[in-house]
Amino acid sequence: MAERLYLFDTTLRDGAQTPGVDFSVEDKILITQLVEKLGIDYVEGGWPGANPVDSEFFAKKRTKTSRFTAFGMTRRPGRSVSNDPGLAAVLDAAVDAVCLVAKSWDFHVKVALGTTLEENLTGIRDSVEAVVACGREAMIDCEHFFDGYKANREHALDCARTAYEAGARWVVLCDTNGGTLPHEISEIVSDVTNVVPGDHLGIHAHDDTCHAVANSLAAVEAGVRQIQGTLNGLGERCGNANLVTLVATLKLKPWYAERFEIGVSDAQLKQLTAISHHFDEILNRAPNRQAPYVGQSAFATKAGLHASAIVKDPTTYEHVDPELVGNRRRVLVSDQAGRSNLLAELERLGIGVQKDDPRLPRLLDEVKRREAEGYAYEAADASFELLARRLLGHVPAFFHVDSFRVMVERRHNAMGDLVTVSEAVVKVTVDGERLMSVGEGNGPVNALDMALRKDLGRFQAHIEDLELVDYKVRILNGGTSATTRVLIESRDGEGNRWSTVGVSPNIVDASFQALVDSITFKLLCSGVAASPEDRPRKLASV
Amino acid sequence: MAERLYLFDTTLRDGAQTPGVDFSVEDKILITQLVEKLGIDYVEGGWPGANPVDSEFFAKKRTKTSRFTAFGMTRRPGRSVSNDPGLAAVLDAAVDAVCLVAKSWDFHVKVALGTTLEENLTGIRDSVEAVVACGREAMIDCEHFFDGYKANREHALDCARTAYEAGARWVVLCDTNGGTLPHEISEIVSDVTNVVPGDHLGIHAHDDTCHAVANSLAAVEAGVRQIQGTLNGLGERCGNANLVTLVATLKLKPWYAERFEIGVSDAQLKQLTAISHHFDEILNRAPNRQAPYVGQSAFATKAGLHASAIVKDPTTYEHVDPELVGNRRRVLVSDQAGRSNLLAELERLGIGVQKDDPRLPRLLDEVKRREAEGYAYEAADASFELLARRLLGHVPAFFHVDSFRVMVERRHNAMGDLVTVSEAVVKVTVDGERLMSVGEGNGPVNALDMALRKDLGRFQAHIEDLELVDYKVRILNGGTSATTRVLIESRDGEGNRWSTVGVSPNIVDASFQALVDSITFKLLCSGVAASPEDRPRKLASV
Repeated sequence: MAERLYLFDTTLRDGAQTPGVDFSVEDKILITQLVEKLGIDYVEGGWPGANPVDSEFFAKKRTKTSRFTAFGMTRRPGRSVSNDPGLAAVLDAAVDAVCLVAKSWDFHVKVALGTTLEENLTGIRDSVEAVVACGREAMIDCEHFFDGYKANREHALDCARTAYEAGARWVVLCDTNGGTLPHEISEIVSDVTNVVPGDHLGIHAHDDTCHAVANSLAAVEAGVRQIQGTLNGLGERCGNANLVTLVATLKLKPWYAERFEIGVSDAQLKQLTAISHHFDEILNRAPNRQAPYVGQSAFATKAGLHASAIVKDPTTYEHVDPELVGNRRRVLVSDQAGRSNLLAELERLGIGVQKDDPRLPRLLDEVKRREAEGYAYEAADASFELLARRLLGHVPAFFHVDSFRVMVERRHNAMGDLVTVSEAVVKVTVDGERLMSVGEGNGPVNALDMALRKDLGRFQAHIEDLELVDYKVRILNGGTSATTRVLIESRDGEGNRWSTVGVSPNIVDASFQALVDSITFKLLCSGVAASPEDRPRKLASV
Repeated sequence: MAERLYLFDTTLRDGAQTPGVDFSVEDKILITQLVEKLGIDYVEGGWPGANPVDSEFFAKKRTKTSRFTAFGMTRRPGRSVSNDPGLAAVLDAAVDAVCLVAKSWDFHVKVALGTTLEENLTGIRDSVEAVVACGREAMIDCEHFFDGYKANREHALDCARTAYEAGARWVVLCDTNGGTLPHEISEIVSDVTNVVPGDHLGIHAHDDTCHAVANSLAAVEAGVRQIQGTLNGLGERCGNANLVTLVATLKLKPWYAERFEIGVSDAQLKQLTAISHHFDEILNRAPNRQAPYVGQSAFATKAGLHASAIVKDPTTYEHVDPELVGNRRRVLVSDQAGRSNLLAELERLGIGVQKDDPRLPRLLDEVKRREAEGYAYEAADASFELLARRLLGHVPAFFHVDSFRVMVERRHNAMGDLVTVSEAVVKVTVDGERLMSVGEGNGPVNALDMALRKDLGRFQAHIEDLELVDYKVRILNGGTSATTRVLIESRDGEGNRWSTVGVSPNIVDASFQALVDSITFKLLCSGVAASPEDRPRKLASV
């Protein structure tokens, strides 16, 4: 009988601590959707009251299936729960669960909190009881637990037991400094199960010695039933436990799969690679090509040597089947896998095509060619759909951009102030008529966008409510003379959202491609279906 | 009594399998020196006879202290040792040790080698005896050992025992597919110690489930006494076991340090960070900022909250002292920075200032203000230093940019082709003289960079070797009218690297700021100290 193992995502809280990472409310909403899509049980959205973004994010419940969780601290020493505004803000949040961090290392209790061990325990108990009283699921993160246990075993265990006895659903043992080793985790967790049953214990590991995943699994083997981690191991210093790696191992390695059930279905597992990459896009950072399971190189074998053996029996060279995690074997043997993925994608978009349609290999080649150049279609649905529709059917030529010119100038104005101005001129042809528009903006791309959407003749009404909500730039291959990829997310008045991509060594050019795709896609979806075998398609709402 | 644990570097052989990596003979010589400098016991230089570079590399012994090792394969089935030219080339090399890979998975023996299990064992024995006869230390890499053991335990153990009994100094158990888990490693290795003593066993792990380091250490705990790995975990798919991480853990974690002695001295350990970064330079790839122990972020803490506690006792927040591995604590100059953090950072930069200097609060406010606007000083050391020097002392005004104009135009050229051209004009004043330059580029920023660095009068010689090696763009707050942050990493001819930042709604403007800071910083470091109380400062080499 398999036991239930719970996964807890702290990308938006602990992961957000990473230097250089700044999640907006929009980012948090998107990431929450990604985490839910994967089948993770808990999403820790942040710390309501700690900063404006988190407070706004917690104004409403953001999950449908995962348990929406708020982070906070146990009540401040010397105050009552009702007299702690920080804690009150957390308890007020529209959540299913509340996870409070508590000191469990005597040194921290005395020096950082400046209080007694007894008061620390009282604080834990009062805080848990307050959470339970609010009807939320209560969790305690025992900070620095393993170092605390080594320094003062009794107090560490007291903290865990106090939380449990006060009604905490979960007592999470945190290796906050990240320096604990797997065999130590095993020993210590085993001891803890004497005061808190394993099915109420969780583990929160860090990667400072490259043991975050190993420590998480060692803890599970010793009895814990909740693992905390982040997407792609995002986190400060050396990162947090990588939930992506853990999900794949828990689902695909028999020792775990036979003993434990997690909330991720086989179908959700197939989304793993896409979800991991999409998260990197949101972070605007290059995916780790060598990431276990989902990295582009994870199943890349030097073809010659192994190709024939792989065709016969891939298990001789692969530890798991890459397709189970939505990745693919990269061996130049056949493109059978590529073709079936493509068909599935086209089906999903409502583009009807027979599986032996001779245009499919051409589309596949075109996609591969462009992706080698830098296009990222997994994050740009609309651009992919336009590419497919153009190759398989037709997309009306709504307008044609004859030329554009963008200028950025930094100079002194008439008052002698140094200013930077950006201006763009765009010349388009609509229904045979030449239209010219000029626009200004905060920067070259903004100016171009303004000019491009200023006057598109009879199509203007259809794009009045078009809004750019996100704009991401990534430089591929480094340096200022490298390739630039631009991803644009657009929205219309009905709440439809779509993403488009542009690639060029020139950032303005790349932005231009993505902008034109965005407008074209909007016009395509507003009008009639492009060809008989295509179902008229409504844009998927967010 | 501590037991001797041997470290074996296969950067130049297994690490070299990584797609995109091509070591020249020069690279191999340099890397060998690095590995020796660290105190690694064996350097596996490649496969003599397999390719011209390796053959040339093995023409002479390349190590002074480490055991120079050649890789190869056991004799081909059906041939004798003397009739196997491949093996002959390996035996001819000027080395201390020879490491031959052998099949140990029955499936591979039958399908890949097309021979019998018995013949496989004979091949192993003959090959080991041939190595010993040449006066070399013999090692056998048992390929796919753990999968082979699971498929046919008897044959896997036979392979190991045969190698040992034939005189191999080391029998290395390889997790070639990388899918074995730590508890399996423990069980299997324990079993193997019944046929080969632990002090003749080695482990060679891969990171396909993020367990390469954990598996290596689990194997040691089960009895092996040689660990194979690569610098920075270089290797195909998800990489090899990271020797850098392993060295630090073996030296600094008491459980290992008390039981085992490795060839790395404390002084050599202090070189760890520099060696790791130097290796990345040779590879020409950006160092992993989050690498355990040696990454730039490995000991980076968000200030404010912890700063005072850290000053009192760093062990409360750090799992090891960063200085032991040649790294340093990075209390981030962020908007939570306190005065003591700032002082520590200024001290490190060689900027002398009293702790009650009235300009410090102004500098702190300036940093906070700019960070709220989007500047990220934790990733832009040079921009921070310029900011500090300007506020606390002075930075010579090497040149002044009076104006610039950048233009991007997409139009048809004389041949009717649609092209995008980018051109920039920059007007600067140097020593009272007006200089104007025009530049072209792949995009607006590239064009601006070209124009800006084209003619800076008497400073031109100092910036000739300045090179932009990385360029990152991040849009803060979404949309095309948001704030853009640009981070530029620059390098000069001596291998110095520095980072600068620029922030503006206008991407060209932001890039311009970062470019000017980069040039100014280079000029500052090339010249005299800015004010009496500042120590003349050399740029820190990587």
